[in-house]
Amino acid sequence: MDVTVLLEQVKSGKIAPEAAAEKLRLLSGEDLGYALLDHQRQLRTGAGEVVYCAGKSPEQAAEIFEKLAAAGGNVLGTRAPPEHFEKISVKTPGAVFHKQAGLVSLIQNPPKPLARPVAVCSGGTADLPVAEEAALTAEFYGARVLRLYDAGIAGLHRLVGRLPELREAGAVIAVAGMEGALPSVLAGLVEAPVIALPTSVGYGTGLGGYAALLTMLNSCAPGIAAVNIDNGFGAGFLAARILTI
Amino acid sequence: MDVTVLLEQVKSGKIAPEAAAEKLRLLSGEDLGYALLDHQRQLRTGAGEVVYCAGKSPEQAAEIFEKLAAAGGNVLGTRAPPEHFEKISVKTPGAVFHKQAGLVSLIQNPPKPLARPVAVCSGGTADLPVAEEAALTAEFYGARVLRLYDAGIAGLHRLVGRLPELREAGAVIAVAGMEGALPSVLAGLVEAPVIALPTSVGYGTGLGGYAALLTMLNSCAPGIAAVNIDNGFGAGFLAARILTI
Amino acid sequence: MDVTVLLEQVKSGKIAPEAAAEKLRLLSGEDLGYALLDHQRQLRTGAGEVVYCAGKSPEQAAEIFEKLAAAGGNVLGTRAPPEHFEKISVKTPGAVFHKQAGLVSLIQNPPKPLARPVAVCSGGTADLPVAEEAALTAEFYGARVLRLYDAGIAGLHRLVGRLPELREAGAVIAVAGMEGALPSVLAGLVEAPVIALPTSVGYGTGLGGYAALLTMLNSCAPGIAAVNIDNGFGAGFLAARILTI
Amino acid sequence: MDVTVLLEQVKSGKIAPEAAAEKLRLLSGEDLGYALLDHQRQLRTGAGEVVYCAGKSPEQAAEIFEKLAAAGGNVLGTRAPPEHFEKISVKTPGAVFHKQAGLVSLIQNPPKPLARPVAVCSGGTADLPVAEEAALTAEFYGARVLRLYDAGIAGLHRLVGRLPELREAGAVIAVAGMEGALPSVLAGLVEAPVIALPTSVGYGTGLGGYAALLTMLNSCAPGIAAVNIDNGFGAGFLAARILTI
Amino acid sequence: MDVTVLLEQVKSGKIAPEAAAEKLRLLSGEDLGYALLDHQRQLRTGAGEVVYCAGKSPEQAAEIFEKLAAAGGNVLGTRAPPEHFEKISVKTPGAVFHKQAGLVSLIQNPPKPLARPVAVCSGGTADLPVAEEAALTAEFYGARVLRLYDAGIAGLHRLVGRLPELREAGAVIAVAGMEGALPSVLAGLVEAPVIALPTSVGYGTGLGGYAALLTMLNSCAPGIAAVNIDNGFGAGFLAARILTI
Amino acid sequence: MDVTVLLEQVKSGKIAPEAAAEKLRLLSGEDLGYALLDHQRQLRTGAGEVVYCAGKSPEQAAEIFEKLAAAGGNVLGTRAPPEHFEKISVKTPGAVFHKQAGLVSLIQNPPKPLARPVAVCSGGTADLPVAEEAALTAEFYGARVLRLYDAGIAGLHRLVGRLPELREAGAVIAVAGMEGALPSVLAGLVEAPVIALPTSVGYGTGLGGYAALLTMLNSCAPGIAAVNIDNGFGAGFLAARILTI
Amino acid sequence: MDVTVLLEQVKSGKIAPEAAAEKLRLLSGEDLGYALLDHQRQLRTGAGEVVYCAGKSPEQAAEIFEKLAAAGGNVLGTRAPPEHFEKISVKTPGAVFHKQAGLVSLIQNPPKPLARPVAVCSGGTADLPVAEEAALTAEFYGARVLRLYDAGIAGLHRLVGRLPELREAGAVIAVAGMEGALPSVLAGLVEAPVIALPTSVGYGTGLGGYAALLTMLNSCAPGIAAVNIDNGFGAGFLAARILTI
Amino acid sequence: MDVTVLLEQVKSGKIAPEAAAEKLRLLSGEDLGYALLDHQRQLRTGAGEVVYCAGKSPEQAAEIFEKLAAAGGNVLGTRAPPEHFEKISVKTPGAVFHKQAGLVSLIQNPPKPLARPVAVCSGGTADLPVAEEAALTAEFYGARVLRLYDAGIAGLHRLVGRLPELREAGAVIAVAGMEGALPSVLAGLVEAPVIALPTSVGYGTGLGGYAALLTMLNSCAPGIAAVNIDNGFGAGFLAARILTI
Repeated sequence: MDVTVLLEQVKSGKIAPEAAAEKLRLLSGEDLGYALLDHQRQLRTGAGEVVYCAGKSPEQAAEIFEKLAAAGGNVLGTRAPPEHFEKISVKTPGAVFHKQAGLVSLIQNPPKPLARPVAVCSGGTADLPVAEEAALTAEFYGARVLRLYDAGIAGLHRLVGRLPELREAGAVIAVAGMEGALPSVLAGLVEAPVIALPTSVGYGTGLGGYAALLTMLNSCAPGIAAVNIDNGFGAGFLAARILTI
Repeated sequence: MDVTVLLEQVKSGKIAPEAAAEKLRLLSGEDLGYALLDHQRQLRTGAGEVVYCAGKSPEQAAEIFEKLAAAGGNVLGTRAPPEHFEKISVKTPGAVFHKQAGLVSLIQNPPKPLARPVAVCSGGTADLPVAEEAALTAEFYGARVLRLYDAGIAGLHRLVGRLPELREAGAVIAVAGMEGALPSVLAGLVEAPVIALPTSVGYGTGLGGYAALLTMLNSCAPGIAAVNIDNGFGAGFLAARILTI
Repeated sequence: MDVTVLLEQVKSGKIAPEAAAEKLRLLSGEDLGYALLDHQRQLRTGAGEVVYCAGKSPEQAAEIFEKLAAAGGNVLGTRAPPEHFEKISVKTPGAVFHKQAGLVSLIQNPPKPLARPVAVCSGGTADLPVAEEAALTAEFYGARVLRLYDAGIAGLHRLVGRLPELREAGAVIAVAGMEGALPSVLAGLVEAPVIALPTSVGYGTGLGGYAALLTMLNSCAPGIAAVNIDNGFGAGFLAARILTI
Repeated sequence: MDVTVLLEQVKSGKIAPEAAAEKLRLLSGEDLGYALLDHQRQLRTGAGEVVYCAGKSPEQAAEIFEKLAAAGGNVLGTRAPPEHFEKISVKTPGAVFHKQAGLVSLIQNPPKPLARPVAVCSGGTADLPVAEEAALTAEFYGARVLRLYDAGIAGLHRLVGRLPELREAGAVIAVAGMEGALPSVLAGLVEAPVIALPTSVGYGTGLGGYAALLTMLNSCAPGIAAVNIDNGFGAGFLAARILTI
Repeated sequence: MDVTVLLEQVKSGKIAPEAAAEKLRLLSGEDLGYALLDHQRQLRTGAGEVVYCAGKSPEQAAEIFEKLAAAGGNVLGTRAPPEHFEKISVKTPGAVFHKQAGLVSLIQNPPKPLARPVAVCSGGTADLPVAEEAALTAEFYGARVLRLYDAGIAGLHRLVGRLPELREAGAVIAVAGMEGALPSVLAGLVEAPVIALPTSVGYGTGLGGYAALLTMLNSCAPGIAAVNIDNGFGAGFLAARILTI
Repeated sequence: MDVTVLLEQVKSGKIAPEAAAEKLRLLSGEDLGYALLDHQRQLRTGAGEVVYCAGKSPEQAAEIFEKLAAAGGNVLGTRAPPEHFEKISVKTPGAVFHKQAGLVSLIQNPPKPLARPVAVCSGGTADLPVAEEAALTAEFYGARVLRLYDAGIAGLHRLVGRLPELREAGAVIAVAGMEGALPSVLAGLVEAPVIALPTSVGYGTGLGGYAALLTMLNSCAPGIAAVNIDNGFGAGFLAARILTI
Repeated sequence: MDVTVLLEQVKSGKIAPEAAAEKLRLLSGEDLGYALLDHQRQLRTGAGEVVYCAGKSPEQAAEIFEKLAAAGGNVLGTRAPPEHFEKISVKTPGAVFHKQAGLVSLIQNPPKPLARPVAVCSGGTADLPVAEEAALTAEFYGARVLRLYDAGIAGLHRLVGRLPELREAGAVIAVAGMEGALPSVLAGLVEAPVIALPTSVGYGTGLGGYAALLTMLNSCAPGIAAVNIDNGFGAGFLAARILTI
Repeated sequence: MDVTVLLEQVKSGKIAPEAAAEKLRLLSGEDLGYALLDHQRQLRTGAGEVVYCAGKSPEQAAEIFEKLAAAGGNVLGTRAPPEHFEKISVKTPGAVFHKQAGLVSLIQNPPKPLARPVAVCSGGTADLPVAEEAALTAEFYGARVLRLYDAGIAGLHRLVGRLPELREAGAVIAVAGMEGALPSVLAGLVEAPVIALPTSVGYGTGLGGYAALLTMLNSCAPGIAAVNIDNGFGAGFLAARILTI
């Protein structure tokens, strides 16, 4: 909705001033009581809709998911436990569950394929749920994903044989808990931007992912930026955004 | 109880010095063994009585609630799980349970209506229990409450259509977890004092609400002060106090 | 500037759509290169202009101060060292320096006196600069201020003789470093809202004011909200805002 | 066991050098495999034996308790859940369980009564388990205990009527969670040393008792020292030690 | 000033009610503008007066010191830099400066000697200023002090030859920075209460004394309580208080 | 240097195995005693050379700068105080100093212009040094930079008039201290990836930039990743890298 | 696999360049989808294989364990709950479970005995699981282990009779929670390197082992280095490594 | 001094019991007033004497240094600023100053050369002072030191050419600030124990070396233990101790 166009329509009398005001008000969506939906957002940001399921009851999540699906676009539910998916799948039968990653996705219009792949590298088996959340999110937004799991710093030599593939990626997501050194290593090996994704895997002074995050922020190798601990969705979304521009 | 009056009575012989001392001692209430009640407090502070239920057994909570109710005023139980309400409602049948907010209220004398409404704005569905605790507390003390839920910073445009209503409020409670930016935004839009109420909603570096709290304390927009994380009661009480003066 | 009015003018042809867009753009102020001034803000918020001097060179501060003064309203410079005041006073001779509080004020239109006074209570001599920043800010916005300094928790009895005065205040600012217990004590004595203002006074585990802040946020006495450590301006501004509504 | 005496016996030939060495070795107790008992400790410190039950299995706790009891002195088990007491009471039938405080005590020789009482003051019902752990520990070591519960800072006036009793105490234990201001208040009212005992009661920025601890360490009122959060045993033991000297 | 006595006087007409109120008001001291003095405090707490000099100008400190001295009792200035002592000594010629400890003391009535000595044990040369602050404070309140410096945990054997002296002490102050293990060691060797006094000596993860403080609070040996980091005054005052009861 | 090519040369006998090993060793650069230079890095990463000047003496910085310049490429010195530039400019006369940003740059081959501009938005005058470090770094790597300073959250309306320009940017750097909310706001307004750059501007609970960083990591708006506090170089480098792919 | 040998083979034509590249690629192991195994690691590091079981499903752990066992060497599973051992023992019948320590070990080739023993000293019964993890790990790598449990700082005298044994050890592992002072004490008694192993045993300000860790890092006694909290495996591995050199 | 020998002498009448006690007392050294010297320590630990100069005046340091030197052994002064060396060199002319590392050393008896070298690897020029403190300390205790500076994680390839040398070392000290990943990398490349030495080099979230320390403690590669931040002396001492056993 372009404001200039609206002003022209007001001038030409096609739209009354009151109606113009009303139009703006409507843009802010319909009120479900607990969540103001925002159908216009997809148009604005070029992205599918997202429902953050944690903190919502299964019924609330399912109702919002259905409303968004009714608008015809793609919908992604994040941090969804199985009981949320059960309720969602009743109202939106086409929804697919990715259990390990806690994602529910509905693809109604396949996204435009992005030009270059996203690489998701991970430091250990325990990081897989977060790594998959990132990988599947990037795919939801049209990216082809190269998965390189168990490529932690203790096994640097394992990365060597995969470097040619890795260097094709337009963005690299480096997933790591514990010491979190993987992003630094990758930033020294590739030219693509590296999205550092710390996980809460670890114990003792791991501080629930904080130690990994600090390592990432203090990296000597430039070309890295970090998202929140365990925020696989954020990393995957950003990777897709980078490849879209 | 006015000390000057007491001194006059001592002088006039109406009260013996020993009795005067005794009177003061009685002011400190009757001893239940685990809680010294304070019937005089309502008179002193002009507010209804409050029972903080967390850490008390359902039986203790119910006994205290009943004693306070017997004094004839209004009583509010906070942080009350369902099993506490069950015991309370047996002894005090008129008590009402607000499950989502964990509040039990008993209104025996409707509070004096406050002149201007309190607005409670919230950033997401997961913040609702805390937002409701604030809203219901403000109502308990006589405020009319305007609820604006799901008005987080990612949806600033949603606030636009509600600004006229919002600007009528004499105090605004801004509830937010995660990044906690809502109070800053509101302080730029309204002239009323903004009570920032951080919630423990979030994950990773959210630090159980600490990130939101820090955002609020460091706000560039003046006119904001913060209460403890998840302290909906404190925010609602303060809002009512502001409108009372 | 009312949007509806603007839309009507567009409709009636009084203003061309392009000019309307331009008008909005002009609202965002004139560009000094390093600071976009905002002359409309005073009208919007009913408050005088404020220049945060820390991090600005004396010359930058003086230039901004002068520009704002030229608009005819009142101007307050905060966190101003003497060398900033020197430069400011050359360009704006009417400006007054409050050295202890680090404030520079220019009153061109005396503010409307507020109905009730603000009480500023402080826990020790070392807290005076912050307490004065709060008190002078409240006065800048029209409040009459009752100063109660050196009324810390170790001297509770000192507050007794001043209670009648204290209870006239419409808002109480409780300034404290170290253990920060003063706001709790005051909230138990008065009915007005208490603004807790922690200071960085202390040593060891005082953590630069953090210990005091935590005490304030965890207070058992309701009716308290806290501002940032050493944020005297914020406390004074909020107190004035509470008395304005 | 006096080393000088031992040396004299070595000199006089009553004890051979090897036997003297052996004697010292035996002092370090008999080896149960998981715990080297120390029968000599009671003689050395004049105190009953203590078993810290947390982290031990019920069987381990019961075996150690029995061994210590067999030496004829008093025994105190701390942080004992009911399942530990069950096993202990089978092997040591005279042991008594204080459920709220998580203590198991066996008195075989009543301790020498201490000259002055210990006062235990507490800020709220939720602090009772820790307060009782302190009170019962002090009693285990011979103190008479004055209990003043629900005397938090929000109810300062409640302390007034009890001051004469309070001032008889030779040591005051001030128990508080949340803001932890009670020790400061008490230190201003009495002349006895105040042992500050922070509890983990609270939420949000209470930080599991850390906020209360910081308040106590930063108190402006001298005459206070703090023990670990929830360390009722430590506070009670120290109070008894102060009254013993 | 006994309230009962006052009430009797009111009854007997010796004092008018208004005068009685006035009397109470006067108790709260004379107003210097920046510090309400409290001449009655010494009578109340049996202790000399204390001026915390940090955060006060030399002139302010000297004026308060002089006023207190004029009341005839003993006065102690803490955290006093040389320039404060210079101003103090002009107005109060009898004042003595203890440079290393930053203390200024004036003894007008020698304190009553306490029955048993206080031992001050310290872990290293760098801790001396804090240790001396503790030792001199204890002496100010009448204690005889046994100084055992450089007796850190790395030199446990050094404590052996001094044990007989150490065990005569009625209270032991254990001063330590870095790892802060000294109080634990001492609590295992003596029966007197141990006051743990952490210092900010150290680097890296010493966290300005926090590491030492945590060690002290988590000590396995009971009979210990801690004061704030570098709070030599607090430790010395508490030791004297323990020996007074 | 391609390993396959090397292996072919070994096979064909053009290079002896020992010489091949030597060649690899030489890749690790020439040894200056304190810094192993890496001439090959520019070829590998397509970027100019960077010298981090903090912690190096002016002489060390100047020697390294000169060596790198001798290789013919562009060189950037970061965190350079004026005394470092003085020494550098003697040995490398073409070097240019950007005093506010602490950067020294030498352009010998103008970088290939990047297709889309980088926007640098900043929240206040005090953030300018860091914002300029980011902007100049991006320019060093070939980006055109759109500077939008003083566009903090308190002045959201100021961003409105600049949105069309802002939306042309291929990457947005959001610079903010204090509460750090600017990146969230921008991520809601544009589709380009947002690089959140926290600054240490602020006081009290700002925690030297930590509060801003936490806000950024916890943002509800996706499409954001953060670099280290005050790491303007890292943000500018990453922005250029994003526009290069 | 020696690179020089490979280069010689390439030169002599025994291996084609492409095949040489392939060989390197194969070194990085076979791909199980979730874990790239690394058969070459044992040869490289001279150590048995290790599977970190936490975060892996019992099935994943058992499959990896079996694969590694098939290579003929020794295998150690760490942080293994009983359900993991159940699955492992089905596929690898020779595996042995150490329940308290959460270790699963398979010895197929007894390790070469190390020349000197490792001493494992522990501060309390609750530390046993971590102490045993360290002791059994050291044994897995060929060390003879001297166990000295319940030798905490409160029982220093208990260490005296064991000193001769202790001084034979080539490395000492000091396990401690709570205050964590044991490593300091041991470093003063022995000449062998002391590996400080903090545990999460404790409460209140123990901070989950952080207090113990800080004590260890700040020890005044040199010759100490620390591993992560509860990292018994790391301590045992390092002890064996020290004795291997 | 062997206790058994002493006991035999007591038995045979060669030494009187009182004299035996006196002998023990003398072991605890001569009293300088501020530092109890410990001449026996060198014999006990086989190491030269160490004076920690920080927190001591130049005069105190020089006096202690001289006393220790007079005993004929080697002496090392740590954290010594130039003004301390000046005073030391007057009293002990043979002392040598290592300015960058802040060390003063006096070699009177060359230490016994250790069998294998110590490698000191460092991540950047700014880490040199700490790296040199470690290297020179190891040399003071008889180690040959291999220095590998500027071998940080951003330049992993630089380590390749030095691996053969590196693998000869019997202990590796890995010095790193910022992200601190170097120890992990080294532990994957060598079999010797790795001593992780974090430095306070960095900014922003480097937290004065804490980020590096956390990385080191959370390393996925076993065989690492960490010393305190900037504790070069501790790392060098431990390395020598490892090579001594």
